[in-house]
Amino acid sequence: MSGFDQRGFDQLWAELEPVGRHPGSGGYRRFAWTREDAALREWFAATAAARGLDVTTDRAGNQWAWWGDPDADGPGVVVGSHLDSVPDGGAFDGPLGVISAFAALDDLRADGYTPARPVAVVNFGDEEGARFGVACAGSRLLTGALTADRALVLRDGDGVTMAEAMKPAGLPVDAVGRDEDTLRRVGVFIELHVEQGRGLADLGRPVAVGSSVWPHGRWRFELAGEANHAGTTALADRSDPMLDLAVAIVRARELAGDYGVLATCGKIRVEPNGVNAIPSRVTGWLDARGADPDAVRAMVAEFGGTLPGKSLTEESWTDPTSFDSYLVARLAALLDHAPVLATGAGHDAGILASAGVPAAMLFVRNPTGVSHSPAEHANRDDCLHGVRALAAVIRDLAGATGE
Amino acid sequence: MSGFDQRGFDQLWAELEPVGRHPGSGGYRRFAWTREDAALREWFAATAAARGLDVTTDRAGNQWAWWGDPDADGPGVVVGSHLDSVPDGGAFDGPLGVISAFAALDDLRADGYTPARPVAVVNFGDEEGARFGVACAGSRLLTGALTADRALVLRDGDGVTMAEAMKPAGLPVDAVGRDEDTLRRVGVFIELHVEQGRGLADLGRPVAVGSSVWPHGRWRFELAGEANHAGTTALADRSDPMLDLAVAIVRARELAGDYGVLATCGKIRVEPNGVNAIPSRVTGWLDARGADPDAVRAMVAEFGGTLPGKSLTEESWTDPTSFDSYLVARLAALLDHAPVLATGAGHDAGILASAGVPAAMLFVRNPTGVSHSPAEHANRDDCLHGVRALAAVIRDLAGATGE
Repeated sequence: MSGFDQRGFDQLWAELEPVGRHPGSGGYRRFAWTREDAALREWFAATAAARGLDVTTDRAGNQWAWWGDPDADGPGVVVGSHLDSVPDGGAFDGPLGVISAFAALDDLRADGYTPARPVAVVNFGDEEGARFGVACAGSRLLTGALTADRALVLRDGDGVTMAEAMKPAGLPVDAVGRDEDTLRRVGVFIELHVEQGRGLADLGRPVAVGSSVWPHGRWRFELAGEANHAGTTALADRSDPMLDLAVAIVRARELAGDYGVLATCGKIRVEPNGVNAIPSRVTGWLDARGADPDAVRAMVAEFGGTLPGKSLTEESWTDPTSFDSYLVARLAALLDHAPVLATGAGHDAGILASAGVPAAMLFVRNPTGVSHSPAEHANRDDCLHGVRALAAVIRDLAGATGE
Repeated sequence: MSGFDQRGFDQLWAELEPVGRHPGSGGYRRFAWTREDAALREWFAATAAARGLDVTTDRAGNQWAWWGDPDADGPGVVVGSHLDSVPDGGAFDGPLGVISAFAALDDLRADGYTPARPVAVVNFGDEEGARFGVACAGSRLLTGALTADRALVLRDGDGVTMAEAMKPAGLPVDAVGRDEDTLRRVGVFIELHVEQGRGLADLGRPVAVGSSVWPHGRWRFELAGEANHAGTTALADRSDPMLDLAVAIVRARELAGDYGVLATCGKIRVEPNGVNAIPSRVTGWLDARGADPDAVRAMVAEFGGTLPGKSLTEESWTDPTSFDSYLVARLAALLDHAPVLATGAGHDAGILASAGVPAAMLFVRNPTGVSHSPAEHANRDDCLHGVRALAAVIRDLAGATGE
């Protein structure tokens, strides 16, 4: 790996940096099937084409850039991540994995390496679910964990369906669904990602191997009240759902502590949301996760039982996912006995693993642990360490011609 | 009043009914200086012109339709209200006063009446403050209670300033401010309004005279936290402003009860408002009112003192307003000894009264007391009773030629 060119990584980083960045917050707003998303997809296709890779888009809208022919010589080794973001997200969550994948390929090629098996970089669409509410929508559609019937009618905050959003991007909406031809090409998937906690910072190590993804889910609760004038309605005559919301937020936090899980109310919708109007309706969302799925389920059940009107609806649930244990052990050994960490965040690698694809992850140290925020960060040296680790993994898993 | 034509009222009502009505909620979204507002202003001007009234727009953007010459023969008797709405408001709050004013004039003219003093119908702009956050902006600008310097830089939720919003409507922004010429024409102002409580319903009477407006204000509180990933941040490591919000909402209600005032949190803004993101910032608004200004002030002070970071900012405050006591007594006597009621809602009549203009209000019975909601209602018979009462008041205050 003597030919490693740090400038390649820096250039890819600089190309992506301005896309979808909000000047006010400094965070990224890269949502599925928007203009920003189209710019990211164009960047992916151009970056792949400049390297002579064959770019295809699957039936779920995910992009694949192949080095070699996976149909003739596959299945192959796939690396990559996603390019979309949460609202006002950071620069690393997703893009670090895609940029590192291209940089690792550049590194290997500069070193004269030719893989024995085909290798690909993937860009999974709509990983954060920020627009339509379902995380990992691209990989879930690919594996069939999310059906087209359910996905295409999902609506964003403006009432636009996923089908309507996909059309301008040129995706054949009638063909959306599980894509056997694409899945058959994937022999193994390794997703590099910025760590979203402080595990590596505490251990003093730059790179870890992911062992598993916690079970996690999203629930919506609708609190109904009676819209009325804030200045003329006696306290005793009010039906104010904002009070129910406040009680629910506090209770979710208390129950999370009781059950040893994580629970968050990060999104709220108030109708009509006027200063002098008692709301007619308040909608809250609960995100809950933990190492133990039974504890998460029990916490959510108790939370739901205390809401007025049995108003809790499950929007998504993902069972715990363990990555391929042989693969995890092999990667940890290869990378100087890297630490092995579980994560509370969902990832496309987890969706593929649940569908039977051998998969694992690499995490790059995050000094503060902050993620889903403009303050999300990883040091450049650690990022370059991640690129080298990913290159070593590709070389190990894809083999070399003549080896 | 033998010539009273109910069909005139019904026709005016039918003309306004579709403007700005949201098909989903059934409520009205008529915000200042929007397309819907322009349609309402066109309706006002056309309705006045069809009656041969002289329409002028003052330096604050309020519309006046004069019967007679207030500069030569004034000051005159002004009746009317506003046409804008809160988000998803009802059909009556505001428009009932304007429609009843035109219907009362029609009634008087059909009866052969000619006033001894000029009479006008007014449409005050931006009464609800739904877009820029300051209630009664039109009447406050007119009297100078709100200065142009402060008003024109107010921003709506999309960052558009009031000045930018006024320009497309053709209002000379450079001239916005207290309008002496217009104020000089107003001898007395009577605002008819749907009641926003159940006072008349409980009394079994169709119409009341307003005696005073409670002191009321709006405050904003900004709660800062640290944006982070909901799935990877330990509970102990979180700085989650949603929890501070929840505590503040519950406390506001408790303090309102303690102090015997009304307090409401009806509007919330969460950033970034993502399901799996601990918010970086939550903004809440507090509306507080009551019969006793000291109690309202004390309640808000205690509320603000318990917020983290002394984050409470006053957006508006209106002292208690008593309408002209001679005028109130005269109207009550004229209208079969109508009940006299105070109100917790702010009104343009209160702003004018505070500026020294003799003013009073008429309230029309609201069977449920519900207001600022699509369910806001008044029975047609009561509305027609209101029109007849307003006509009697005009005849009494403006006198008749030859009387």
